[in-house]
Amino acid sequence: MKVCIIGCGAIGSLFAAHLGRLDDVEVWAYDPDETHVSAINEKGLRLTGLSDIVVPVKARTRPEDIPECEFGIIAAKTLHTRAAMEATAAIFRDGAVCSVQNGIGNEEIIAEYVPRVILGTTFPAGHATAPGVVNHDTGGKTWISPFAPKPATMEEVRQLADMLIRGGADIVAMEDARGALWTKLIFNSASNSMGALARLPHGVACDQPGLRRVMRALVDEGKAVAAALNITLDSDPDALIDYGREKAYQHPPSMLSDVLNKRPTEVDALNGGIARIGKEIGVPTPLNEAMADIITGLEYSWREDEWRKLKP
Amino acid sequence: MKVCIIGCGAIGSLFAAHLGRLDDVEVWAYDPDETHVSAINEKGLRLTGLSDIVVPVKARTRPEDIPECEFGIIAAKTLHTRAAMEATAAIFRDGAVCSVQNGIGNEEIIAEYVPRVILGTTFPAGHATAPGVVNHDTGGKTWISPFAPKPATMEEVRQLADMLIRGGADIVAMEDARGALWTKLIFNSASNSMGALARLPHGVACDQPGLRRVMRALVDEGKAVAAALNITLDSDPDALIDYGREKAYQHPPSMLSDVLNKRPTEVDALNGGIARIGKEIGVPTPLNEAMADIITGLEYSWREDEWRKLKP
Repeated sequence: MKVCIIGCGAIGSLFAAHLGRLDDVEVWAYDPDETHVSAINEKGLRLTGLSDIVVPVKARTRPEDIPECEFGIIAAKTLHTRAAMEATAAIFRDGAVCSVQNGIGNEEIIAEYVPRVILGTTFPAGHATAPGVVNHDTGGKTWISPFAPKPATMEEVRQLADMLIRGGADIVAMEDARGALWTKLIFNSASNSMGALARLPHGVACDQPGLRRVMRALVDEGKAVAAALNITLDSDPDALIDYGREKAYQHPPSMLSDVLNKRPTEVDALNGGIARIGKEIGVPTPLNEAMADIITGLEYSWREDEWRKLKP
Repeated sequence: MKVCIIGCGAIGSLFAAHLGRLDDVEVWAYDPDETHVSAINEKGLRLTGLSDIVVPVKARTRPEDIPECEFGIIAAKTLHTRAAMEATAAIFRDGAVCSVQNGIGNEEIIAEYVPRVILGTTFPAGHATAPGVVNHDTGGKTWISPFAPKPATMEEVRQLADMLIRGGADIVAMEDARGALWTKLIFNSASNSMGALARLPHGVACDQPGLRRVMRALVDEGKAVAAALNITLDSDPDALIDYGREKAYQHPPSMLSDVLNKRPTEVDALNGGIARIGKEIGVPTPLNEAMADIITGLEYSWREDEWRKLKP
């Protein structure tokens, strides 16, 4: 069996490492980062932290150097979903691609490029510490299900889940994982935007009463949108925020890392996604909309060479 | 006539410079910054930019070195209002003190320390460029009026206005200047919070459609509170935002300078003030409340030595 990880950053590496433990699975990875790819090919992909393992992965920067695969797992940042699928579509001519990305809107894009799609949402977190090395920060479940209107078969979803479970991951194969996806979407939109704007790790932000209050208000808007879509949440996103405070007090939300490194954030697929769907179905989401607008404005501030010239 | 400027930063210096031009006014200044005070005493207070002038000011870091004065003009940052009045109250045993500070809540504090209070709001802006030197960035009017329940007489308000007008300032003495104060309060709350969080100068922030939209929503909340208080705004704060875009495109709002220099901001007297009064009178102000909470959280992020130790 051949599986290709699309975007072998922190999350992609966690999945690659699970599959890399299995003798009957050949793990490929597509990633544009040459240094990272070389390190993986030379020394194997190494996980530290919660996991401590080195596994063989065939990493490539050129998609044409990767053979056709039965499965894909895309873990690229949401803003690279289209570019990544455009580059790798040929690998999955008859394959099923599963998104384990943040936010909403990814599966819709994937469906434009491959015959069968698996919706997914994942809770484990990690961060790259060196080329070829990823620290496994926190554990957690991953939920996957067929994605309409281009669903993978339930058989395929179970097959992918079984492989990952054999590799040590905590996977739940379902008929409909949208409840899990929206739970994480709402959790992420609230915790990431506050961490990124107030520039605080998750737990520290939770302990500032004003920030915790805004997180709750953001969650309430997200819940109202999910309810209007008849999506039953998997668990209460607000309780997940408290759970995260216990488990990952000093963990910088990924959006905070993006902001500190002046990299584009995923806000458009998080708060922006909730606000867009809210608008479509007539559920007010003023706070999520404001967070998306402010963080988009903050991203623009990094283009100082450009705006300094606009007007004296 | 003796007048004491309380807090001789950018705004205080503009007022000091106007009065320093007059032969019949002795200008004193209280400021805790020793370098700035020494420079003023040695070389005079210097304005550059819109004004180009050097005037004599008797600056002191110790309030006990300042004689009793008929008038005070307090231009301290809102979070220092109480400390500044506690230090200087004896100077105004029989004097009237006028606030030209940002936000709401200052006059209430001043009234605890001196017999007569003048409410004021001012539009000119400047910034310190060296000890004893302030650049006069933008012009604009200043509105002053008696402040109940400890009002200065209308006679005193006119006397202060006349002095400043003779010194070249654009001052309007009124029976009730709360409309002007709320106009600037609403304008400032919208423009400063967006500039500070998105880290963009005023005009650049205005040209980001999402940020401009949030500014408008913040203004709408502020207008609703003012209307419920039966305060007639002096002009439309939203139009002032556009006017500021024309006149001061690359001007960093003072709250942005505070954030970039990791200094406490005035958010509690701006968005926080609107949210508090809104809550008291039952007018919803969720966006202003969120901005106050987020910026207060951001201020806390600067105490990393403290929060890094809280929990692993």
